[in-house]
Amino acid sequence: MELAKMSKNELQDILKNLKEKHEEFKSKNLKLDMSRGKPGADQLDIIEGMLSAIKSNKDCFTEYGIDCRNYGALEGIPEAKKIFADILGANPDEVLVGGNSSLNIMYDTIARAMSFGVVGSEKPWGKYDKIKFLCPSPGYDRHFSICQLFNIEMITIDMTAQGPDMDTVEKLTSQDELIKGIWCVPMYSNPEGITFSDEVVKRLANLKPKAKDFRIMWDNAYAVHHLSEKPDKLLNIFEECKKANNPNLVYMFASTSKISYPGVGVAALATSRENLEQIKKQIFVQTIGPDKLNQLRHIKYFKDLNGINEQMKKHRKILKPKFDTVLNKLDEEFKGLEIAYWNKPNGGYFISFNTIDGCAKRTLELAKEAGVTMTPAGATFPYGKDPNDRNIRIAPTYPPISELKIAMDLFCVCVKIACIEKLLDK
Amino acid sequence: MELAKMSKNELQDILKNLKEKHEEFKSKNLKLDMSRGKPGADQLDIIEGMLSAIKSNKDCFTEYGIDCRNYGALEGIPEAKKIFADILGANPDEVLVGGNSSLNIMYDTIARAMSFGVVGSEKPWGKYDKIKFLCPSPGYDRHFSICQLFNIEMITIDMTAQGPDMDTVEKLTSQDELIKGIWCVPMYSNPEGITFSDEVVKRLANLKPKAKDFRIMWDNAYAVHHLSEKPDKLLNIFEECKKANNPNLVYMFASTSKISYPGVGVAALATSRENLEQIKKQIFVQTIGPDKLNQLRHIKYFKDLNGINEQMKKHRKILKPKFDTVLNKLDEEFKGLEIAYWNKPNGGYFISFNTIDGCAKRTLELAKEAGVTMTPAGATFPYGKDPNDRNIRIAPTYPPISELKIAMDLFCVCVKIACIEKLLDK
Repeated sequence: MELAKMSKNELQDILKNLKEKHEEFKSKNLKLDMSRGKPGADQLDIIEGMLSAIKSNKDCFTEYGIDCRNYGALEGIPEAKKIFADILGANPDEVLVGGNSSLNIMYDTIARAMSFGVVGSEKPWGKYDKIKFLCPSPGYDRHFSICQLFNIEMITIDMTAQGPDMDTVEKLTSQDELIKGIWCVPMYSNPEGITFSDEVVKRLANLKPKAKDFRIMWDNAYAVHHLSEKPDKLLNIFEECKKANNPNLVYMFASTSKISYPGVGVAALATSRENLEQIKKQIFVQTIGPDKLNQLRHIKYFKDLNGINEQMKKHRKILKPKFDTVLNKLDEEFKGLEIAYWNKPNGGYFISFNTIDGCAKRTLELAKEAGVTMTPAGATFPYGKDPNDRNIRIAPTYPPISELKIAMDLFCVCVKIACIEKLLDK
Repeated sequence: MELAKMSKNELQDILKNLKEKHEEFKSKNLKLDMSRGKPGADQLDIIEGMLSAIKSNKDCFTEYGIDCRNYGALEGIPEAKKIFADILGANPDEVLVGGNSSLNIMYDTIARAMSFGVVGSEKPWGKYDKIKFLCPSPGYDRHFSICQLFNIEMITIDMTAQGPDMDTVEKLTSQDELIKGIWCVPMYSNPEGITFSDEVVKRLANLKPKAKDFRIMWDNAYAVHHLSEKPDKLLNIFEECKKANNPNLVYMFASTSKISYPGVGVAALATSRENLEQIKKQIFVQTIGPDKLNQLRHIKYFKDLNGINEQMKKHRKILKPKFDTVLNKLDEEFKGLEIAYWNKPNGGYFISFNTIDGCAKRTLELAKEAGVTMTPAGATFPYGKDPNDRNIRIAPTYPPISELKIAMDLFCVCVKIACIEKLLDK
């Protein structure tokens, strides 16, 4: 029965019962972490053989004879450029392969734009009093942190089931020269699991921003991270940009952090050759080059995109039951109550969960009291402020299923307590 | 005999003979690269066992149980912090261990200072119309490139046999608030092989710059890179800074690029805890953390500073004969001619060679014509401009000795041609 239709007395009875359950959880001294989209140890252990793919000095050469131990190959080794070109839908000469963190490449891309501008900039972004970025939300907190650090004003854009609200994106970018970019996680978005529709991708590629140096930060973090045998399909924005005579509009990012090892993966940027030439001149000053040996290790292990897709099937076998555990529990606990709704993603790392307005913070406070840490409420919005205080990012990947079950039992109790308190408060 | 005292006829005869030799070299179609301080393949091959130190998933844990495959440990693993603390003369909690490139850490340090300032800054360095850096020269071209990219005005400071000309450094820094830093390679400096004297280190640590956010960029790239059994000794500037109540004055950098593998080493920054806390907040936004597994690989192989010192002895065995080849040849060819002088370094990667004024560019042009690439003339000075056009950085490490001999034969011919042309031109 819909909770909002219950009498105060009925709600109070339920609340009393829930609070007892909550006390029971507290007495268990749990210490469970569901805060980040972090692969679990079980996922890390399925990659056996990559670390032994390079055992000695004679294993350190690429097919074309590059000695991966020494300096050089600023753009990454050709084999790695090829594999990321295939992941991101670009040509190998449109790819720069870096270190272990796509976040780092994204940060650096913004940092360089602030200091030096991008192709088409009249001046460095940092020379404006303040520039702005569009932030489809709920979104990825680390994107928003980068904006905040560089004092870039964030404009929240609503996420629809097809992607960002394009009417607003088109309107704002066409009017305001200070809007220099937009953050996108286009496939299995963080946290909502939404894959941008073809129409949204096309409209993004065809933007005519007032700022001639506007950029789409296309964080394709979950390009191959399917949870279903019928995966979502994402239109190739880079091709659409080229068709639209907007070849420089998009920077695309990907990494193997959730394919091989999170801390020891390989990350890459793909963009137009004109953008890339500018970036390479700057990166030449910044570094002696990426860790090519780790790139080679990945190539020796995965060989090509097929190898990656095979690996992702193994991940799916581990992840699908975890997502199902969460989704089944949510169905079970909240069906008919009308106090929560959530997405059922086809891939990615998160389930985006929404309470009735004003209950997210309180829910997570209650969870924390009982020893379960989740992504802080508001983290999925610019400045950490969810205007409706309702979105919670559930990250089911890290804990083993046994722990996940306990955490979800507790979570559901917390949601119900927070929502009933809110209903009683009206 | 001193060339300058010879008659024109004598010089012309010698020149004719030298030009014939130069033509002979040209006909050999050489392709030798002495442009960078790059370890040779022989040096890379002496590290056997590091790459197999981590072969499987069970090898990926630190002594304290950190899973190096996953996210986390932004500052690096404790064992790596310890070893760099020992190299740089700091405490482990004053160290941040990063990726494979100390150049990258230095660049990032400047980039952050430009965007956000440092501890004690009134405003970000980038908010001034123009800031300035002191550049002891000859120096490391990559330091100067960073300044140039960020439009930081470079002020050339003479290098003496004890280090930078401290009278000028003290005078300028005490007067000009826009001078925000100085680049130093304090041990076996690039290219001169000079180790800063105790007095210079103390005077640097006791600077009272007008800019409250002045920083010493202490690039201790060759801290353990001795070429002699009686190595130079460098006073610990960090301790001197602490004694002088200037704990935040210095950022110290080091890497294993020329200890393990150039492209696959580990780099670190050491500085005061106050500086480090500020930096960590910013780095948290920039990256998911360094490649901890490569750090662990280094720890498993080297164990501690002793292990590194043992490795450096092996490097010395390879490098000393290369340096001797160059130095003996220079002695042989130039003794008494009074057209060239050079340093005999006790360590590091370079021999700094000076012709009579106005002959460096011409020398390298002649070398290039005959197929030998060296560091471009002027590269060791700010803006790539050697005011006296005389300094040439000889990098003897990369070629095998057989090639080095040929390259040096040619080099000496080129120096003589350039100098005689200059003398005849007077």
